[in-house]
Amino acid sequence: MSPIFSGKEEIQLFISGGTIDKDYDAVLGELIFPATHIPELLSEANSTLPITVDVLMQKDSLQMDQNDREKISQACQDSACAKIVITHGTDTMVETALCLLANPDLVDKTIVLTGAMRPYKLGKSDAAFNLGAALMAVQTAQAGVFICMNGHLFRADQVQKNRSAGLFESR
Amino acid sequence: MSPIFSGKEEIQLFISGGTIDKDYDAVLGELIFPATHIPELLSEANSTLPITVDVLMQKDSLQMDQNDREKISQACQDSACAKIVITHGTDTMVETALCLLANPDLVDKTIVLTGAMRPYKLGKSDAAFNLGAALMAVQTAQAGVFICMNGHLFRADQVQKNRSAGLFESR
Amino acid sequence: MSPIFSGKEEIQLFISGGTIDKDYDAVLGELIFPATHIPELLSEANSTLPITVDVLMQKDSLQMDQNDREKISQACQDSACAKIVITHGTDTMVETALCLLANPDLVDKTIVLTGAMRPYKLGKSDAAFNLGAALMAVQTAQAGVFICMNGHLFRADQVQKNRSAGLFESR
Amino acid sequence: MSPIFSGKEEIQLFISGGTIDKDYDAVLGELIFPATHIPELLSEANSTLPITVDVLMQKDSLQMDQNDREKISQACQDSACAKIVITHGTDTMVETALCLLANPDLVDKTIVLTGAMRPYKLGKSDAAFNLGAALMAVQTAQAGVFICMNGHLFRADQVQKNRSAGLFESR
Repeated sequence: MSPIFSGKEEIQLFISGGTIDKDYDAVLGELIFPATHIPELLSEANSTLPITVDVLMQKDSLQMDQNDREKISQACQDSACAKIVITHGTDTMVETALCLLANPDLVDKTIVLTGAMRPYKLGKSDAAFNLGAALMAVQTAQAGVFICMNGHLFRADQVQKNRSAGLFESR
Repeated sequence: MSPIFSGKEEIQLFISGGTIDKDYDAVLGELIFPATHIPELLSEANSTLPITVDVLMQKDSLQMDQNDREKISQACQDSACAKIVITHGTDTMVETALCLLANPDLVDKTIVLTGAMRPYKLGKSDAAFNLGAALMAVQTAQAGVFICMNGHLFRADQVQKNRSAGLFESR
Repeated sequence: MSPIFSGKEEIQLFISGGTIDKDYDAVLGELIFPATHIPELLSEANSTLPITVDVLMQKDSLQMDQNDREKISQACQDSACAKIVITHGTDTMVETALCLLANPDLVDKTIVLTGAMRPYKLGKSDAAFNLGAALMAVQTAQAGVFICMNGHLFRADQVQKNRSAGLFESR
Repeated sequence: MSPIFSGKEEIQLFISGGTIDKDYDAVLGELIFPATHIPELLSEANSTLPITVDVLMQKDSLQMDQNDREKISQACQDSACAKIVITHGTDTMVETALCLLANPDLVDKTIVLTGAMRPYKLGKSDAAFNLGAALMAVQTAQAGVFICMNGHLFRADQVQKNRSAGLFESR
């Protein structure tokens, strides 16, 4: 019996910003984007997955516009990998997922968007759980565009963010 | 198109102990098992999965014997759930996985063992990443017995712990 | 030889807010004041000091006005304790300290203001160090009004906040 | 009016080990002494005190013998500083303090021993609070040998560790 996943197929991890990557700046007294913390998170997790990390942008997803989504979509298209995880702000994660779903050149890829409600660097965060789940999903799910939050794997066209609850849910 | 996973199928989470659930006792000056921290981890992760958590034992896996493994195997058999995650010490995780693989009454279930190299309560732990990955794996993998560590999903009969590196690897 | 401090003299700890007591609200996506975390900090520190904790207000110190400072001053005056620590936002900590210094009814009391540049609940914070230092200072310093930050004990009229550096310094 | 402490007098910080400086080694599955974390703690605390840090040894204080205590005593004697803080394991902190008290060449120095019941690197630790208090005490207390734990400053000959409670108390 062969392994169901070799774990040897390269995974592309695109960083686009979002709460997951913010940290509190003590002098400014506000949350900012320092350099991405995702490699630190992967190291802490003892991940041995073959992951290529690239930072596309570091934006609050409320600040993203159509140009940003097209940049993400193009990066997914240009990547040699068929398995792609994207860290992203939660507020417009669904919009970006739908944009990727609309790109016909991505139909053969498995793309999983994830993020966090509390920054990784603030502790007590959902970041590591979500990224662990997303990296497993990208290995095990069929081709498609998905959002991985709250332990669930949602299809891009079947999910919405419930902002008052701070949770993603089927729609 | 229907969702690939409803997220509504109940998941059974069995706690058996292991490093993931230890904490430092300041008076004793050593690591002990307090009450399980897994529900706290799931809450921090904003999990909305339908999970039933049951504590079978709280043991360092080096202290587990055949009776313990049979107790775990029987609990999996008795559970009404077809999707089961087990938190477990890493040192004998493979032995327990092989014991479950040998139980013919479990062939229709998806069982995923996971744990951590550093206790959740000590911070900078791999616990949340691993549990997130395991809970995703149990929803997406076919029937079988698996070990989910280091971002990988290994079949029970195709994995070994590399103790000097502190990592799981294919064999 | 008698102990230099009995550790039995009651210490009054007044909470007025400030960064030290903020936490990130995941749904709102911003820093808010939940219930004060100072008792949790004292418990984590294994403090056995006889401390009475009272919350006067929970304000960002940039939002404090003269009424707030007079409320703090009156509370110090009304307290039966001669040793008072006040947690406070750093931005106007000096203004409040000078207001207390101007109250002639406080001349026999030792009053130490402290706070943090990073919230206690965000981890990697200066909160515990500062509060430990302030609680020691209030026991060992003579009567007067002081600011305890960055490991130093500054007289109220000889300190300023260097905002660009995020540090307090003599002036 | 002049400042009561200039904050410009050099403080010598000697590291001798103890729980405060331990961390969990994930591969060994036990607590070890990596390189000291005290400079990291001071940085996190935004300390601007003029502190010279020197590592004398990294020992569990139960493993210390008379040679170790004499080494610490000699280091205090050799230091040009009159203000000395020593991080130390709690189990024999009193013994070392009494050894320093017995050295007549130290009578003009203020020496404060401190440590932690839970390692700094494990989070939720008393380390930062204790070190903040000790660094304030060394600036404000008269000459003598002291133990700074649980928010109190105890004279070396008037303190004992209550091991079952994990606390220091007057004797």
